[in-house]
Amino acid sequence: MNDIIRAMEERRSIRSFKPDMPAKEAISQIMEAGLYAASGMGKQGVITVAVTNKEMRDRLSEVNRQIGGWKEGFDPFYGAPVVIIVLGRKDIPTHVYDGSLVMGNLMLAAHSLGLGSIWIHRAKEEFERLASAFL
Amino acid sequence: MNDIIRAMEERRSIRSFKPDMPAKEAISQIMEAGLYAASGMGKQGVITVAVTNKEMRDRLSEVNRQIGGWKEGFDPFYGAPVVIIVLGRKDIPTHVYDGSLVMGNLMLAAHSLGLGSIWIHRAKEEFERLASAFL
Repeated sequence: MNDIIRAMEERRSIRSFKPDMPAKEAISQIMEAGLYAASGMGKQGVITVAVTNKEMRDRLSEVNRQIGGWKEGFDPFYGAPVVIIVLGRKDIPTHVYDGSLVMGNLMLAAHSLGLGSIWIHRAKEEFERLASAFL
Repeated sequence: MNDIIRAMEERRSIRSFKPDMPAKEAISQIMEAGLYAASGMGKQGVITVAVTNKEMRDRLSEVNRQIGGWKEGFDPFYGAPVVIIVLGRKDIPTHVYDGSLVMGNLMLAAHSLGLGSIWIHRAKEEFERLASAFL
């Protein structure tokens, strides 16, 4: 088994994070790895946004918690100091597949740099709700 | 940049394949790498099937061609000797995301073993059509 397949085997979804901020360089590398993912017709319509600001991160967590229906005080981001948001363009028919491949790269790249991660759902409902709150 | 992120960067979607059959061991390793992908709630409801039989592979290619509306004689699998089919369970809400993560692992694992690959769509329509032909 080579290093790449071994990394896939060893990666796990993490549900408890230390609050320490990873190096900026590591976050950049992970984001870039996300952009290397294949996309339908090579359209690369996926956008990724890294949220490192604690106030914004806490706000995203709180909206996500409400949508998920969890009890007050629960952090659906499990204490992770960085949230990477993956957004697909709805006018690209393959945007769900494309975004998923980006997510896969992000999680594996994070693991390869010694950082844990987990895919958190509900981004769609969350950003629709946040958008309407700003209108 | 580490080897894993570099592999992501170097991987490309391939549109011309040699007819030589890869080693059985390589195909097994790739299929196994697919199963290491994360899945919603850890349900792992994705099934992968490797088609190496030329007659079956040609038949899948022909149905795919018809659905895609390409001209007769075109091979939408670009001459690849192996087709790996990724099937999700529709009763699992995250099956599209789950299947996409498996696809991502398959493509990156193939690259890591020196094998090209490309994601070919239309599996859904194809298997519904093939299933109805058998009923």
